[in-house]
Amino acid sequence: MGKAKINTHKLGKKLRKLERKLWTYEYLLKISEFDGATVAPENGAAARGEALGTLAAAHHKLLTSDKAVELVRALEKAAAKDKITGQLADEVRVLARDQREALVIPTEEEEAWTRLICEADAVWHKAKAANDWASFEPYVDRIVKTCKRHAGYLDPTRDPYDVLLDQYERGLTSQAFDAFCDQVRATVVPLVHAIVEHGVQPNASFLQARIPESIQKAISFDLIDLVGIDRADTALAFTEHPFSEGFAVGDARIATHIYEDNVISNVYSIIHEAGHAIYELGVDEAYAYTCLAGGTSMGIHESQSRFFENTVGRSRAFMGPLLQILRRRIPAIYDSVSEEELYRAVNIAKPSLIRTEADELTYPLHIMIRYEIERKLFSGEATARDIPGLWDELTMKYLGIEVPDDTHGCLQDTHWSGGSFGYFPTYALGSAYDAQYAPAMASAGIDLEAACASGDLAPVRAWLEQNIWRWGRGKDAPELIENACGAPFDATYYCDYLAKKLGALYAL
Amino acid sequence: MGKAKINTHKLGKKLRKLERKLWTYEYLLKISEFDGATVAPENGAAARGEALGTLAAAHHKLLTSDKAVELVRALEKAAAKDKITGQLADEVRVLARDQREALVIPTEEEEAWTRLICEADAVWHKAKAANDWASFEPYVDRIVKTCKRHAGYLDPTRDPYDVLLDQYERGLTSQAFDAFCDQVRATVVPLVHAIVEHGVQPNASFLQARIPESIQKAISFDLIDLVGIDRADTALAFTEHPFSEGFAVGDARIATHIYEDNVISNVYSIIHEAGHAIYELGVDEAYAYTCLAGGTSMGIHESQSRFFENTVGRSRAFMGPLLQILRRRIPAIYDSVSEEELYRAVNIAKPSLIRTEADELTYPLHIMIRYEIERKLFSGEATARDIPGLWDELTMKYLGIEVPDDTHGCLQDTHWSGGSFGYFPTYALGSAYDAQYAPAMASAGIDLEAACASGDLAPVRAWLEQNIWRWGRGKDAPELIENACGAPFDATYYCDYLAKKLGALYAL
Repeated sequence: MGKAKINTHKLGKKLRKLERKLWTYEYLLKISEFDGATVAPENGAAARGEALGTLAAAHHKLLTSDKAVELVRALEKAAAKDKITGQLADEVRVLARDQREALVIPTEEEEAWTRLICEADAVWHKAKAANDWASFEPYVDRIVKTCKRHAGYLDPTRDPYDVLLDQYERGLTSQAFDAFCDQVRATVVPLVHAIVEHGVQPNASFLQARIPESIQKAISFDLIDLVGIDRADTALAFTEHPFSEGFAVGDARIATHIYEDNVISNVYSIIHEAGHAIYELGVDEAYAYTCLAGGTSMGIHESQSRFFENTVGRSRAFMGPLLQILRRRIPAIYDSVSEEELYRAVNIAKPSLIRTEADELTYPLHIMIRYEIERKLFSGEATARDIPGLWDELTMKYLGIEVPDDTHGCLQDTHWSGGSFGYFPTYALGSAYDAQYAPAMASAGIDLEAACASGDLAPVRAWLEQNIWRWGRGKDAPELIENACGAPFDATYYCDYLAKKLGALYAL
Repeated sequence: MGKAKINTHKLGKKLRKLERKLWTYEYLLKISEFDGATVAPENGAAARGEALGTLAAAHHKLLTSDKAVELVRALEKAAAKDKITGQLADEVRVLARDQREALVIPTEEEEAWTRLICEADAVWHKAKAANDWASFEPYVDRIVKTCKRHAGYLDPTRDPYDVLLDQYERGLTSQAFDAFCDQVRATVVPLVHAIVEHGVQPNASFLQARIPESIQKAISFDLIDLVGIDRADTALAFTEHPFSEGFAVGDARIATHIYEDNVISNVYSIIHEAGHAIYELGVDEAYAYTCLAGGTSMGIHESQSRFFENTVGRSRAFMGPLLQILRRRIPAIYDSVSEEELYRAVNIAKPSLIRTEADELTYPLHIMIRYEIERKLFSGEATARDIPGLWDELTMKYLGIEVPDDTHGCLQDTHWSGGSFGYFPTYALGSAYDAQYAPAMASAGIDLEAACASGDLAPVRAWLEQNIWRWGRGKDAPELIENACGAPFDATYYCDYLAKKLGALYAL
């Protein structure tokens, strides 16, 4: 017994050392990618690809080395005999899965993949600016082909697209997502039609005033404060496509895109990305430098960002604190806008071209466009060449509008250039998860409306920290939701929320 | 013969592979440091220190591994027999020196050093903002102690400070720098006294107008264009202490600090840092991913930045293009300023507190203050505790002014927190080197004044590219200067330049 205990202790120390080194590589990968997306000049892309390729290979080699495999297997055995428990057992479980999934891909392929997406990202940036789908098209085919091959390595018996879905959201299948889409469509499509037929939209002209970058920056920090992020834990950067990234304890950042003629775009980008960042910052500090650090899945991540953006940020009650900020920074325009006017303006539901700018109601339809295209690419029904046509067709089908060019169509998002096929569905799921949090908070005695109205979101943060954030990668999405909400995920909450909110707004 | 040739070819390929991997680590170190100095939040410092420590250790281990040592020695032997020549022989020579210097320091000490300076940098940032020398003081003592130890490893027979000087500028000794200082002082001190006695300073009130950040940013890019950097090769970032960093072919960036009430500070920071950046971008592209990439020494680097800042940027002729930019961006103020007025205003010589804001004439005196303190720290005559007192005393001695607080005194520069003892002298030397370039250009038939007046600096860039930039780390400073200027470095050019320029400006 004594000897076994010492061995387990030693192995645990070795594991921590391995995790710390893996963390270092991941940190450097993320820093360099963040740099690439926010600051780096165009001509630095080749060198970044070189460095990231080498780094990804080093990470892969370390994770899949014989020594690392033996170490993790020995610890798995010890865990099976309950010789290790608690956090270390969770680390072993999660790292073992990471390792199994990495082992099926040869290191050279992992390196080549990293180089391919670095190159594709640079090409996409130029293609989007130039409305030039043709230059980007071959990369999409190459990326899809590689994703299919990798999916085959992971599980040759399953539909490759299902394998990818499972990578972003554990347990998700296209069958389940199809059912989700059916249910959501049944609520959303009639509502969209009713609103279009209704014909009258609230006044939102005040949202179009030109607000200089410097003022929008100041508003960004006001909002970061309001969400509740410590300024010393975050930074604001600028990029083509807003995103957030968590790097370490005390370091999660927000990258936004300021349009001077669209202040509200940045307002909701900031609240959204701050939701992602505060999740990363809320992970148990004991998980620092281990494989448990960071968010558990894309869907859970998106549920945090969209909870802050929509459930909080677009609620009637939140218009008080939001208007206070807008009046302080832009008195000439917002002193004469009422809370009710602002509420109606930021909740206008209307088919539009750009996903990230879409309202709550039409948002899932944007996801369905991408999902259907991805399915066709993976089933072999379509290739990259078909994408612009499919995009136009599906945008007409779901949103009833025409796509003027690929920049505002199939080139708008960064995800495909980053190789993230199977990622978009998590955006829709995340929005749906978050509708289930509010009733759970109410059951826990939290007055969400009062918190929004006062601008003191501390009780909301406390619930999220306790039920979601602190668990890091220690729990998968289904378990996390069931523990937090007392029931498995159910899209009914989301559909009911949308029907009630939009029905009231448009007096349907 | 045949076999030896094949072996050498194989070894050369191995060397390139080693260099490429070393380059990757260096790139990631620089990206992460750049991130730390420009974007990263305060609370991310500990994680960055963790990652950089591990990365520095991995770099050191790779460079000093038995395999790498054997490889470099075998290639050194082949080079001695002229079996390899040209660029590869240069790579072997430079990498062999890097390796010899790295080998004397144990990897654990290299890692601990990186962690120490990461920590010291974070403490310095806070200490400067809070005027709190006491919190930073113990780090200075630790850093000096470590520098001394490392210098002893490199050459136990020499004065440790001389060993450090030689690291930043090959061949430099304190004896040589003392002689340089004596010569410069003999010119500068009487000039400063004469100007102070002269009593009348030109009007510069227009320089103090409040210029918003957005306009200063636009001016920054105008100046980057004027220096001649391709926008796709560079990026502008913001930081406490302006700097520039070269990352790769096509990627050299500028970090500046905008003060809204001091437009000219940013103007000359940008021109200065653009001079550094264009040097990095001008290195022979064939050196990419090898040890020859990047600038050869701090002194040569500074000679490029100060050539653009002073010889070009503060010349009478350059007032044409500079005023054109200022008038375009700030017509309300600069439409009524003449070239002659601008020339006099940006060349005001006047003792002041902040080195980076100092005029051309008093600048070397700021360096002497730091040099004398560093000498005392390394000789053991002083410890960190004595620095604030010494700073006050030497500022009074050389500049005749009182230091109001440590923020504007001994905490102003980032160098000591970064462990860069022995670095400051290269700033003064760089300024002096650059005075020797102008006559050399004239001998080569280049009309510098006409280039400055027209704003087309192409002939100037061509000379610098040909004589300095393209050589990268392939030549050390003394050889480079002698080749470029047809004679060894001679401070007389610098002294004559200052005496002539300031004499005319102040009618002395």
